[in-house]
Order: sequence, then C-alpha cells, then structure tokens
Amino acid sequence: MSARAGIVITGTEVLTGRVADLNGPYLADRLLELGVELAHITLCGDRPADIEAQLRFLADQDVDLIITSGGLGPTADDMTVEVVARFCDRELVLDAELETTIRRIVGNLMSRYPGVDAEAVHAANRKQALVPAGATILTPVGTAPGVVVPGHPTVVVLPGPPRELQPMWQAAAATDAVADALAGRTLYEQETVRMFGLPESGLAETLREAQRDVDGFDRLEITTCLRRGELEIVTRFEPQDAPVYDALLATLSDRHAQEIFSTDGALVDDQVAALLTGRAIATAESCTGGLLAARLTERPGSSAYVCGGVVAYANSAKAEVLGVDPELIEAHGAVSEPVAEAMARGALARFGADTAVAITGVAGPGGGTEAKPVGTVCFSVALAGGTVVTRTTTMPGGRSDVRDRSTTIAMHMLRRVLSASR
Amino acid sequence: MSARAGIVITGTEVLTGRVADLNGPYLADRLLELGVELAHITLCGDRPADIEAQLRFLADQDVDLIITSGGLGPTADDMTVEVVARFCDRELVLDAELETTIRRIVGNLMSRYPGVDAEAVHAANRKQALVPAGATILTPVGTAPGVVVPGHPTVVVLPGPPRELQPMWQAAAATDAVADALAGRTLYEQETVRMFGLPESGLAETLREAQRDVDGFDRLEITTCLRRGELEIVTRFEPQDAPVYDALLATLSDRHAQEIFSTDGALVDDQVAALLTGRAIATAESCTGGLLAARLTERPGSSAYVCGGVVAYANSAKAEVLGVDPELIEAHGAVSEPVAEAMARGALARFGADTAVAITGVAGPGGGTEAKPVGTVCFSVALAGGTVVTRTTTMPGGRSDVRDRSTTIAMHMLRRVLSASR
Repeated sequence: MSARAGIVITGTEVLTGRVADLNGPYLADRLLELGVELAHITLCGDRPADIEAQLRFLADQDVDLIITSGGLGPTADDMTVEVVARFCDRELVLDAELETTIRRIVGNLMSRYPGVDAEAVHAANRKQALVPAGATILTPVGTAPGVVVPGHPTVVVLPGPPRELQPMWQAAAATDAVADALAGRTLYEQETVRMFGLPESGLAETLREAQRDVDGFDRLEITTCLRRGELEIVTRFEPQDAPVYDALLATLSDRHAQEIFSTDGALVDDQVAALLTGRAIATAESCTGGLLAARLTERPGSSAYVCGGVVAYANSAKAEVLGVDPELIEAHGAVSEPVAEAMARGALARFGADTAVAITGVAGPGGGTEAKPVGTVCFSVALAGGTVVTRTTTMPGGRSDVRDRSTTIAMHMLRRVLSASR
Repeated sequence: MSARAGIVITGTEVLTGRVADLNGPYLADRLLELGVELAHITLCGDRPADIEAQLRFLADQDVDLIITSGGLGPTADDMTVEVVARFCDRELVLDAELETTIRRIVGNLMSRYPGVDAEAVHAANRKQALVPAGATILTPVGTAPGVVVPGHPTVVVLPGPPRELQPMWQAAAATDAVADALAGRTLYEQETVRMFGLPESGLAETLREAQRDVDGFDRLEITTCLRRGELEIVTRFEPQDAPVYDALLATLSDRHAQEIFSTDGALVDDQVAALLTGRAIATAESCTGGLLAARLTERPGSSAYVCGGVVAYANSAKAEVLGVDPELIEAHGAVSEPVAEAMARGALARFGADTAVAITGVAGPGGGTEAKPVGTVCFSVALAGGTVVTRTTTMPGGRSDVRDRSTTIAMHMLRRVLSASR
C-alpha cells in the first residue's frame, strides 16, 4: 500500500469562496509526482476547533502526511501553528534566530510604506517566530515561516499565499521528516486522453465495453470529466499494468479516432502553440472581449507568434478598427458568419498577420433573439494563403460559460485548420 | 447556536485540481444568505470509502445539513447516491417515473450526436434512476437527478456541473426536509471593507488597537485577506452587535481613509462600471494581452460603455494599430511611460472613445533588464478632455500574478481618475 496524505486548507476567505484555493491543486500535483496517494482535502475557517477536528479526522484515516495551508500571518485570526502544536502534543517555543530573520524581512518591506509604524508592525510579526518544539523550520519566502513536525502523521505547516507556499513545499519535501513519512510509497503512472466533440454518455458506454473486453481493466483507476467543453480521461496504474492501459487506449482510439486530440497529456493550448511556431497570429473578438488573446498570450514566449488583437465590442469598432463593411453588419447582423469572416480578414490585414481567428456571438444574458438565442457564436479562421473556415455553434450556459467555452472552440478550430494546412 | 452545515465535494478531477471546484463557493454563499454556519468543506476522489469517511466526519461534527456535489453521472466511477443510501441506512430503489424522465432527456440529447448507440446510452443512464427509499427526488437539470434524504444530518445530493447544481440547490432548499434541518438558525449580518495600498501587517496593527479600544470587539468574527492586490476585511456578527461593527468601521476609516475604497461590499469593478455610465472606454494592452478588456466586458450590459480595445503585443502593432511613433519606442523602450501614454491616446483616437487605459510591462519570465526587471508595468489613463495620468509600478510574482495584478491596478487608476474628473 502506498503512502497516503491529506491536505488541510484553512482560512475563512477560502472556505467562503471569496478567494479560490490554488494550494490544494498545486500540492495534489506534487504528491502525485512523488507517488503519494492524496485521500482528502479539507477546508475550514480560521477557527481552532474546526482546524483541530480536521487534523484528527485525517489522523483517523491513517494518513502518513498532513499538509496545512494558511493561518500563519500576523493577524489574530491566524493560529494554525498553535493548533498544530497542540495536535502534535508539543510546546510552542520562541525561536530567537527566526525572530531576527522576520524582523529583517519586515524591515525591508516597511520601507515601501513610509506611513506605517515599524515598531508596531514588528510586534505584530513576533508571534510568527513561535514554533512547536523539535520542529524543522522552513525559511519564510514572504514574512511567515513554515514548520515540519515529525511523527505519525508528519505535519507540514505552510503559509496561504501560493507564491510563498510553493517554494516552501519544495523545501519541506527535502526534509528528513517528510522522507521518513513517505518511505515505502508506490510509484504510479498516470496517462491522460483528451477528446473534443463526444458526450460523456458516449464515453461511458465505451468504458463499459472496455471493462468487459480488456483483461485487468479493474486494476486501472479511471476518472473522466468534462472540462471547458472537452472530455478528459485520466488513468492511474502501477507500472506493471502498462499493457492493460495500452489495451484501453487501443479501444478508445478505435471507437473515437475523430474526437481524440491528445494522448500524451498535451492541452489544445500546447498543440496550437506548436502549430503557430513560425507564424504570426492576430485575433478579432466581440463577445469574448479579449479572453482568446489573453489565452494565447498566457504562455511565456507567445510574443514570438502573437502580433496582437482587436476587441471590437461596439459595431463601430468592427467597422472602423477591423474594416468590416457596415452594410454587411446591417444585412446579416453582428453575429453572423459573413461578419465573423470579415473580422478575421480584417485582423489579418490590420496586423499584417498570416493567421487570424474571429469570434462574434451572443454571450447573454440579454441580446438573444429567436433566430440567434443566447449562446449562438460564430467563429472564423483565416490564413494568409486564402483558406477561410467559418462555423456557427449554439452552446448552453451563462455568460461566463459561453465566453470561456468559445475560446476552447476557437482553439480547436485553429488546431484543425493549422494541422490541415501543414 | 446556529444551524451548521458541511459540504462534501466528490470527484477525482476536483481532488487532483484538474477541475477547479466552483460548487463549494456557490453553496457557501447560499448557506450564508440562509444564516447557516458552514463549518467544513471536504474534497475526496471517486472512492466509496473516502466519501463515506467524510460523511461520518461531518456527522460526528454534529452538522445539521450535509450537501454533496458530484458522482451522479452515468459512468461507473459515479457512486455518491449508493454511498449516501448506505450512510443513511436506506435501501436503493428504482423510481420508474424518474427512469422515464431520464430516458426522455437523454433521447433529446442523443439527437445531437447521430453516431452514438441510443439504446446503449439509455442503459448507461438507468442507474441514475436508483434513489434511497423515502428520499425527495430533485428533477434533473442535466441528466442526473438529485435527492434530499431527511434525518440528522439531512443529506442533499447534487450533481457536479455548476449549471445543474445551482438550480437544483434552489429546489432542494425549498423542501420540507431542508427546512426542518435548518430550523432555529441564527441570522448573521456580514459587512465587507476593501482597501488598496496598505500592507497586511499595517492592518493587523490597527485591528490590535481596535481589540483594545472597541467595546464588544470579540463578538465580531473578522477575517482579513489579500486578494488580487487588495485587502478585504469581512466581519460577521449577530444583528444586536451592529453598533460594535460601527465602532470598528470608525476606527478603520480614521486610520486608513486613503486606502479604503469600499465599505458596502462593492468591488472596484462595480465602482468603475458605475463611473463609466454615459462614457465610452477603449483599452490598449501589451503584457496583459486582453485581460483588462475581458475584465471590463465580464459584466452584462458592459456593451453600453465598452467600445473595444487593442492587444498590441508586437511593437509593430503598437505602431500600426495604435499609431505609437516607432521613434518613441526606440528612444524609451516599449515598457515606458511615454509609450504607455501614446498607447492610451492612440486608443482614444482609434475607437473615438472618451476614456482610455493602456498597460505595457514586463510580465516575465523573460524580457527583464536591470533597469526594468520582470514585474515593471507602466499604466496610463487618458480622458478626451486632455487629462492624462501615467504611473509605473514594480510588482512581485510570476507571469500570471503580474498580468492579473496589473488589471487591478488599472481598475484603481480608472476609479481615481474618473472620480476626480466628475
């Protein structure tokens, strides 16, 4: 049996959803890489009794490692270290060297805010130098130190801000205490298949067939999910079961050759980035308001192939900035294939690009008609050689669903058109 | 004491962070509105033993209501209803009427995918018509029905897709079983203060003073957090303690009049939207790649004041689309105040707008220099009357932090310039 872990995310702002938790997903990925089985993530507010109850729950579930996030700040609602010390039955002691370190860090920060009383701030930060006796201290990346408390379970206490937590987890993972806790873990392999254009029920049926036909199927741990309009099938297995996975993959490929676009973990974003190498792309967006340009420029190095884009929200902007003929808009409406195509051609010309993609649609909640209900979106991809591919889709969901899903459809159109033009 | 609730989010894709959980935050808001105290959110994979352990943990914590999300689909890894039935000690029974309903819904869906074997899909969906004896059935919004199982705790079982979960929670909240579970809850009030430009330590010191000076301070439940570069202070209290909150607010306003921008829950986005009423805005973005335009068009009705924007990622796009003098870029660099200002003026002219905001910066990881390290970003706001305000900031963090934080700074600059010009 593999080493098992649990994660405790504290913070009323995270429990209530005012801040999205990024630490659970980050730590889940790191544990997976280490071959540790993540059993539970629990979230609670800044209440000692609730934090302690979650620690006890995870200990009762016999996890080898607990990682906590949050509650290490200078404010009075931050008390994770105190609760963990009590849970691990250790006293809190003031670490003088750590206090000096925090004082130095905070002194530097204060120079940016001339109006703040530095001595008062030092007092507020002093409590951050209290650590459980015998714990390994993790040097602060921000102002808050973390700790590793050895034992069963071993508890790693990390700060809430992802920018601090991430390097401090790397430091924690290198400690003897964490190595001891994770001794004897199983290494798993994980493979991902991504599809576009198949309903989840269709996949379910194929998996049922595979269960009947593939020998050893039940040793694969398969999870499927719909994500941004794509189906993702993640399979986890022990190395000796690789041939079973290969048999599953053969079944999927056989049934869904059209819909599978990735079997190596690559996202459509990775594939489009690779296809754009050596090219120059421009975007023309209406209802997505810049989300597609933002998605294309999300990755480092995208400046090599992204020229830019136009958000032509108003009809006048479509005409004046992209050069769409106002009579075309008058005749067909702003949400129409002729206008999408003219927007793509306009982006090609305006930016001197060789690849352009345009999106115009009704994101809602208003603006829908019987002929063009909310969720109607037209897409056009144009290449400098003369290729133009234009499509209309109607999708379900609210404003943000339609906007987000539209960027995915545009990425898949780009992928298909660029693959075909190679 | 108030009614307490717990939320169980199931799904390996959510546990492992491949899909962000939107249901916890949604349900947390709804529970808050109902005056129900949310104690815990727990996440686990599609494993019956882990789901059952979490249900038992929440029951041990004496919650009155458990809401589960996910695991109601047709695939074999979906088994929440079965686990809940066992936990509540009820048999699973086939509901014939429900089976007919699901068959009708799935039949309609299938018409969109002509290649799929409809009878096989119906078989895959049949298991979704099995419900715990005595439970109230929640009509499917997608294909999966939910159930409410009365008792202590009462368990509400909902599907994972947010679009299905949200209306089905509204239906669940209207059932007698949920009303009984939540009888005798306390109604809380919640107030939010937002600040921009103060470090968290400075706020901690003010709260320590307030603890000393404000009578009844300990009856306020205060949580503070840093969020997209802003500080958010949320206070929850029983109605009779409103005067205590007023005293806290007076202390905060006294010490941080400059930094407080909202005391009524409004986001900077709300304030900027209100200030833009009757105006016409255009954006000019380089490093943020469309994120600011996307943020401005996120809200319904934004077409009333957003003309559009240009993503001028390449220098040639800054020159050709926004009319920035190439010599200006040559002389000062693309990341400079003169170029930011020229981009803003270019956006005003190009779109015929009366308000423009420009962002140009080094988002990283590459492209930094000693003089302009990664995180250096120039902002400019220009109004048609001739007002131009330009600033440079250096911020910490990685590429996505810098891009996201830059949109917040731009929103605050817009807020200040538009407020001053009124």
